[in-house]
Amino acid sequence: MTDTRLTALRTLLDGRWAPVRDEVREQMGRFRPVEAGLSTEEYRARVLDLMGELAATKRPHAGFAPEYGGEGDIGGTVVSFQTLGYGDLSLLVKAGVQWGLFGGAVQVLGTSRHHDEYLRAIMDGELLGCFAMTETGHGSDVQNLRTTATYDPATREFVVDTPEPGARKDYIGNAARDGKMAVVFAQLVTGGDTRGADARSAGASHGVHAFLVPIRDDAGNAMPGITISDCGEKGGLNGVDNGRLVFDHVRVPREALLNRFADVAEDGTYSSSIENENRRFFTMLGTLVRGRISVAGGAGSAAQKALALAIRYGATRRQFADPTTGEEVALLDYRAHQRKLLPALATTYALHLAQEDLVAEMHRIQAPGAVVTDEKAQRDLEYRAAGLKAVATWHATATIQACREACGGAGYLAENLLPQLKADSDVFTTFEGDNTVLLQLLAKGLLSEYGRRVAALGPLGTARFASGVAVEAFAEKTGLTKRRLRAVDPRSPQAQARLIHDRAEHLLASLARRLRPASRTGTDQFDIVNDAQDHLLHASRAHVDTVVYDAIATAVDTVSDAPTRELLAQVRDLHALSVIEADRAWFLEHGRLTVAESRAVSAAVNDLCASLRPHARLLVDAFAIPESWLDCPMLRTP
Amino acid sequence: MTDTRLTALRTLLDGRWAPVRDEVREQMGRFRPVEAGLSTEEYRARVLDLMGELAATKRPHAGFAPEYGGEGDIGGTVVSFQTLGYGDLSLLVKAGVQWGLFGGAVQVLGTSRHHDEYLRAIMDGELLGCFAMTETGHGSDVQNLRTTATYDPATREFVVDTPEPGARKDYIGNAARDGKMAVVFAQLVTGGDTRGADARSAGASHGVHAFLVPIRDDAGNAMPGITISDCGEKGGLNGVDNGRLVFDHVRVPREALLNRFADVAEDGTYSSSIENENRRFFTMLGTLVRGRISVAGGAGSAAQKALALAIRYGATRRQFADPTTGEEVALLDYRAHQRKLLPALATTYALHLAQEDLVAEMHRIQAPGAVVTDEKAQRDLEYRAAGLKAVATWHATATIQACREACGGAGYLAENLLPQLKADSDVFTTFEGDNTVLLQLLAKGLLSEYGRRVAALGPLGTARFASGVAVEAFAEKTGLTKRRLRAVDPRSPQAQARLIHDRAEHLLASLARRLRPASRTGTDQFDIVNDAQDHLLHASRAHVDTVVYDAIATAVDTVSDAPTRELLAQVRDLHALSVIEADRAWFLEHGRLTVAESRAVSAAVNDLCASLRPHARLLVDAFAIPESWLDCPMLRTP
Repeated sequence: MTDTRLTALRTLLDGRWAPVRDEVREQMGRFRPVEAGLSTEEYRARVLDLMGELAATKRPHAGFAPEYGGEGDIGGTVVSFQTLGYGDLSLLVKAGVQWGLFGGAVQVLGTSRHHDEYLRAIMDGELLGCFAMTETGHGSDVQNLRTTATYDPATREFVVDTPEPGARKDYIGNAARDGKMAVVFAQLVTGGDTRGADARSAGASHGVHAFLVPIRDDAGNAMPGITISDCGEKGGLNGVDNGRLVFDHVRVPREALLNRFADVAEDGTYSSSIENENRRFFTMLGTLVRGRISVAGGAGSAAQKALALAIRYGATRRQFADPTTGEEVALLDYRAHQRKLLPALATTYALHLAQEDLVAEMHRIQAPGAVVTDEKAQRDLEYRAAGLKAVATWHATATIQACREACGGAGYLAENLLPQLKADSDVFTTFEGDNTVLLQLLAKGLLSEYGRRVAALGPLGTARFASGVAVEAFAEKTGLTKRRLRAVDPRSPQAQARLIHDRAEHLLASLARRLRPASRTGTDQFDIVNDAQDHLLHASRAHVDTVVYDAIATAVDTVSDAPTRELLAQVRDLHALSVIEADRAWFLEHGRLTVAESRAVSAAVNDLCASLRPHARLLVDAFAIPESWLDCPMLRTP
Repeated sequence: MTDTRLTALRTLLDGRWAPVRDEVREQMGRFRPVEAGLSTEEYRARVLDLMGELAATKRPHAGFAPEYGGEGDIGGTVVSFQTLGYGDLSLLVKAGVQWGLFGGAVQVLGTSRHHDEYLRAIMDGELLGCFAMTETGHGSDVQNLRTTATYDPATREFVVDTPEPGARKDYIGNAARDGKMAVVFAQLVTGGDTRGADARSAGASHGVHAFLVPIRDDAGNAMPGITISDCGEKGGLNGVDNGRLVFDHVRVPREALLNRFADVAEDGTYSSSIENENRRFFTMLGTLVRGRISVAGGAGSAAQKALALAIRYGATRRQFADPTTGEEVALLDYRAHQRKLLPALATTYALHLAQEDLVAEMHRIQAPGAVVTDEKAQRDLEYRAAGLKAVATWHATATIQACREACGGAGYLAENLLPQLKADSDVFTTFEGDNTVLLQLLAKGLLSEYGRRVAALGPLGTARFASGVAVEAFAEKTGLTKRRLRAVDPRSPQAQARLIHDRAEHLLASLARRLRPASRTGTDQFDIVNDAQDHLLHASRAHVDTVVYDAIATAVDTVSDAPTRELLAQVRDLHALSVIEADRAWFLEHGRLTVAESRAVSAAVNDLCASLRPHARLLVDAFAIPESWLDCPMLRTP
């Protein structure tokens, strides 16, 4: 008899795109898992084959526009990507490069001339491509890429060039072996020198734009003027062929510019629907938010798989006898073992639900025919994606590490899947945006929004607000905050929400105050911001905590089956209280928890670990990871 | 002109065994680094070659007894192992298996008949061997291994047998490919059934003993009755051939028993110089403490190398422009980047110095002719080794991960060394004793010692002591502790020492109080201890923090050069304050820090990061890692 809670939890977790998830699960179950011990070249070939199998399912088509045979199902595409994360992560990433980054850029940055020519071949996996943005010297600061694309009106061509070693395109997926074409991001220059070493000195630079550049001919040889090299072995994802591209005055036709937001006329006249260069750049980047959201989702699946493996192992592997009974005790019955895995499991649930909300919001804004066109909604989505990607990928890295260790020597053997999961997902923390940089991006967004809120108060309101903040700061220093008077029951969702939200607000308000001097001219802006960098990152993380908490707290209320709701409420409690516990110094320092309450939080985390332990297996089973992708010797050996 | 501080720091870090370190550095500089992209079999072959080169240096001989051509330099052997940790970690581990575990067991558990026959061949690397302790079903709880060695007086042989699948020897280094012999740990049974499936049922079991068992003939084939299999690819260390051994009633002569502590007469009479089976087992295990100390040292070297790579990269790689100057800023000038690397660097210094103390103490106790023979010193050494191994290996894992991320995409490429460092060192947290289990072992030791101290007070003293503890507990609950009256200056070593020691003592005392009910019969011991498990682990970690802090604090006082002392004092401060910062919730909860003081600790960590930043390169250069082992493209590219 199936536990009804299993069905109810699975329904909740699968959410709106449940049919997509089921379809991908079924397809993946048919893919033969990648063999162990392949050489890098064999592994790459194997993943390329899988790309073909994946294309044949037509699943990757769904995200593209209906005019070209797609379904315009933006949300479903991200969810299907996420579900692929239960399997081989090289396939996940190579599929992401092909259909998400390369295909996505052609779709959202290009116009019908590009769509007509390339979209079908891209969808079918016949035209494999690269997303050539990152350079050796510029990864996070993509606005300052050094590659140039200089328009030559004489031949109506762009000349793509790598002017210095640091401008080499680096870490580019699909480049080392399989890619035939690349979307190359370069500074668009008009009126510049198309032959010299420094195109930008003579001409006018219009900022970074994207160009379609063929990089290999049909025989697989590099196109003239392009030097392709191989990044070689990596820490993981060795089924993906990352490479480097160097351009020596490579000519492409004027039409190679992906011209949705800007164009160059035959005579070299530059035009754009977005006047401001900065805004134009961020509008272009903004359309690519899907990649970041997909990585957050992939990280979630990797963490879920690691937890499923470690919890199953911990429930069967026994070590040391109970002194009273003489029976050996299952690892998962030890509190220390529970502490390693169960709070991480609770947070994995909360992140999954927050991810589902994020995907739905993205779908609302980006799906064809979407009614939302305001910039603010788009910007908020980008900030939320940045924050969630950072927190979800760090969580995955830490969780998979904990799961590896929780399985001891068995967890270190490739046959038991955890080492590759760890190695493959490790780069998630620094690709598609370095996590630290993403949290800074989020902080910037939160600060602008905060500035607008304060400004909206008007002069009198601002003064009142400022004095209120000052009084609170004084009260905190003296330990006399009003909040202390409200006793905190750690198991009350109201108290959890208050603590988590209040911390985020306070960190943001105090950050805004601290950074105010940096807006004055003549100050050393860099030092002021740099000295507050840990405060800034803390504020961002605290904000993400509110988003994640709200997702699980809301989900609990939607569950109608009482036993399931009760179980999920405990998961919510464990997530919330382990978040609070990890930062309880802050709550103590700011008078939000008394010493007794702080200790009660730690005690409650321990109690929740004990009470969720019997349900741990059920909770990981609800992820519904195909059994064939969890099968490994450590779960078979008695 | 060399900075005099560089020389002074290097002298301090190299310590007593500086000549050994220099010799190994020089030898390693001559070894050709292992090529990238080798298959597992090629890599294993390459490491085997390096084993030969290493044996030819005669360095591994030094740790063995002078009678057999060694130098009895126990400390120097561990230090030389540690220095090997700057190079290929597969070589480190394979050398550790051969000369540390296998050779070490023959030396310390065997007697002259074993020494005469095998030691020279082991030292020369002609006889490669395994240390077959861990079983699939029992790793941490080695006292309950299931492999049996049953004496058959009729033939004067032991019959070694694997009675159940879980008793298979697993993860055994040197077993899959190269080992000819194994030290096999098995339950010694006399009077048992030498042919049946359960030898122990009929006979008398005397606990776990070690036996020398040939596992391969000269042609490399498994010996009759032994099934050898390969653990296959691992998360790292793929130059080491880990394998599995299954014994089907394998007969070895009576002399195969490593009989230093116990023997079986021809007629089957068992005798031992240590009557108590439990004590006998732990005495045998205790002689093997060197492996654990070596792993702690190897982890330290891996962390140092990762920091050297990441700090060099962070000092040259620039990203985003300073808004005032327009110049791009070096990664290491960002506070967030400093926060990732510099506290870890400070703790790496402190751990290195604590490791040096530990090695010196081991040498004092174990070197031939050592005058220290008391059991307490040996036991204390084991506890200290357990604690330091756990803390040092977790520190290495976290630090290498942070270094990898701090180098972004470059840090994920194999050519830049960090991924392999991460993958290879990852298992250090769970082999040679699982870290969580080791911290429990330490806690057990600390509790016994604490019990003895309390008992030594006598009845009146105990009562006074108990009431003092009660008063303190009351004062803490009400927030009125006397300690709060002493203001804490975070930069004062006295204050640092007081905070770090006081926390360890308090955690231990309260743990002892909490566990007292478990000593009464009829209670549920398991639940009482299990409920306190996080408290117990916290107490152990806090104790290790005292040992590590004391090591660096003492070292600062020994430095005579004033600028060096000043620099090292800042390193000490950063280590101490980041330890306190990480656990400042505890200090707040227990009235050891006021809110203002707690915030001052965080502020001081930030200030120290800024003031140590200009010296970061100097601090990693003082590790004197051979340049050829740090050379990688990311440090060459402009």
